[in-house]
Amino acid sequence: MSGNGIGFELGATDGAARCGVITTAHGTVRTPAFMPVGTAATVKAMTAEAVAETGADMVLGNTYHLMLRPGAERIARLGGLHAFMNWPRPILTDSGGYQVMSLSKRRKITEDGVTFQSHIDGAEVVLTPERAIEVQRLLDADISMVLDECTPHPVGEDDAKASMELSMRWAARCRDSFEPRPGYGLFGIVQGSVYPELRFASAAALKEIGFDGYAVGGCAVGEGQASTFAVLDATVGELPSDKPHYLMGVGKPGDIVGAVLRGIDMFDCVLPTRSGRTGQAFTASGVLNLRNAGHAEDEAPLDETCPCPACKGYSRAYLHHLTKAGEMLGGMLLTMHNLHYYQHLMAGLGEAIEAGRLTEFAAGFDEPDGAETDVDR
Amino acid sequence: MSGNGIGFELGATDGAARCGVITTAHGTVRTPAFMPVGTAATVKAMTAEAVAETGADMVLGNTYHLMLRPGAERIARLGGLHAFMNWPRPILTDSGGYQVMSLSKRRKITEDGVTFQSHIDGAEVVLTPERAIEVQRLLDADISMVLDECTPHPVGEDDAKASMELSMRWAARCRDSFEPRPGYGLFGIVQGSVYPELRFASAAALKEIGFDGYAVGGCAVGEGQASTFAVLDATVGELPSDKPHYLMGVGKPGDIVGAVLRGIDMFDCVLPTRSGRTGQAFTASGVLNLRNAGHAEDEAPLDETCPCPACKGYSRAYLHHLTKAGEMLGGMLLTMHNLHYYQHLMAGLGEAIEAGRLTEFAAGFDEPDGAETDVDR
Repeated sequence: MSGNGIGFELGATDGAARCGVITTAHGTVRTPAFMPVGTAATVKAMTAEAVAETGADMVLGNTYHLMLRPGAERIARLGGLHAFMNWPRPILTDSGGYQVMSLSKRRKITEDGVTFQSHIDGAEVVLTPERAIEVQRLLDADISMVLDECTPHPVGEDDAKASMELSMRWAARCRDSFEPRPGYGLFGIVQGSVYPELRFASAAALKEIGFDGYAVGGCAVGEGQASTFAVLDATVGELPSDKPHYLMGVGKPGDIVGAVLRGIDMFDCVLPTRSGRTGQAFTASGVLNLRNAGHAEDEAPLDETCPCPACKGYSRAYLHHLTKAGEMLGGMLLTMHNLHYYQHLMAGLGEAIEAGRLTEFAAGFDEPDGAETDVDR
Repeated sequence: MSGNGIGFELGATDGAARCGVITTAHGTVRTPAFMPVGTAATVKAMTAEAVAETGADMVLGNTYHLMLRPGAERIARLGGLHAFMNWPRPILTDSGGYQVMSLSKRRKITEDGVTFQSHIDGAEVVLTPERAIEVQRLLDADISMVLDECTPHPVGEDDAKASMELSMRWAARCRDSFEPRPGYGLFGIVQGSVYPELRFASAAALKEIGFDGYAVGGCAVGEGQASTFAVLDATVGELPSDKPHYLMGVGKPGDIVGAVLRGIDMFDCVLPTRSGRTGQAFTASGVLNLRNAGHAEDEAPLDETCPCPACKGYSRAYLHHLTKAGEMLGGMLLTMHNLHYYQHLMAGLGEAIEAGRLTEFAAGFDEPDGAETDVDR
């Protein structure tokens, strides 16, 4: 990369879908990319080395969690988040807005920012657009996100508009306080709930400000896959095509495939990690629930074709036993497998785009009507 | 090995301390040996590959846990414990007696055996000497242990004598029901609490029956290191010197060093694994409690000289954070380190015996007077 900001080189395309390479201060990220979620400076149940072995180029860190514990200034004194969590590759941090809404107590939103009580110790914390950028700089995030108000679902159009406009004013303040540096970038976040006109206005406002990448926010809040796809259909075409497009907090494999078809380049979701800790495994033939007694004497691996350590060494019967017995190794192995599955999916999407056969690839991932996208992150 | 049973080749000695190699159906075990505890077919928080990387040759499985869940017959149908838990190397199983005493409800001991209620589902289970041997055969343990009554501490001499004599009758029944096979062995267990005459009588009874190895039981039940060492001083000289000597459920590093000085070859203990999950790390300079706020900004690894993955990639500050945040990775990394520490200790003991300088090596491990040996397993 040269000059300030991150690099983004577009490669093959197939319809709206794209391959690309993002270049940051800590290395490159091949897109379409799935970022495992490393909430509290750890991708739960995984060593950093094992995360790298899944093929992940970039992980996501949560500003909300890290600013509360161990604290952004502490992480900065310890050399930044990469050194702290032993992840020398690219890191994207969210801005904390989503978790303030979902986890904190007694939050109060004003024009200036949001004041809330920590869910850990009850301390009162203020998060402004300027502080969100400062925290992410202290963490040394390669890609920072603007602070936004994550609009709940469902919400009326007037409330969605007011919320989106507040987020756009905050986005401008984030841009102003973000110090340009080579290899470091700032992404804006399109809001506007399910209302196309609001999404257009939000995208236009962000383009006017100018960002290194553009995220679609406010999805994966329980609105369903069809609604998410409708938002993407209305939004992605409005985003600069020479910048990365990031769908936050999504999702199931079918959600990701559908979003890549619609021009999204980046994803994060807790689904593969959280599901692993609750006994669920993603496979080519669907989701397995390892608690199911039907697996108790099944000597087959989770997925015959998967090269991950969990599939190479351990049977479904053993994983069933570990899950029933509440053994940590169950969550460890299932998380490992699920992250391998997600990275394998992303690699498959990339190869399909290169080969111009994404439509055929995607045909295997259709979801039943009305399936919910995952609401947790 | 040739013929039935396991092999044991004695190597260098230094005073009463010995180096040796045990040969089993699934490979060799260098002694002095520490066996990580794999209670429920998993060394908690560790993959089998990571256990092997610590240098461990053999792990211990718990008959009590495995017979209740997933069941010995099920493990046999799945190819035995080695295949089930992805540990192709030697496995020793205890007989279940200790856990029946410490974990089960409403147990009743008769001449025939022990009847108890499962701590998992309340089911009534009968464990006789013959069933204990059958279960261990179903698990495919390389080394099986006789069923014994683990005498509580403190206990009067008459009760200790009656309990020991019952254990000796059970030991004879175990020997009778154990089918000799090449590479598979059965160990007897010396009981008799703190009473030297009872320990002599127990050792004599076991020698009369004849076993592939001899364990010292009834230690690590809260009697203190000095008392454990006194039992060893009275007992180990009574055991056949051409067979392995195993001190069950012990212990702290200083306990192990003192027992090796007294002629013990094999150990197991939950201390390194359990301590790892509660935030404690063994180091050359003592035990670190990672919950201590003093570690919050310490960029040093747990131990500068340790080559384990936890010490090579992660700081004390990070481990403090993970421990405080209750993250699984904290227990994973600390367990990994502690098992490396224990295997490094065993290797150091072996090298000191080879070099004839065990006394000097041991001088660094003296415990304060009255220090308790670990009572958990």
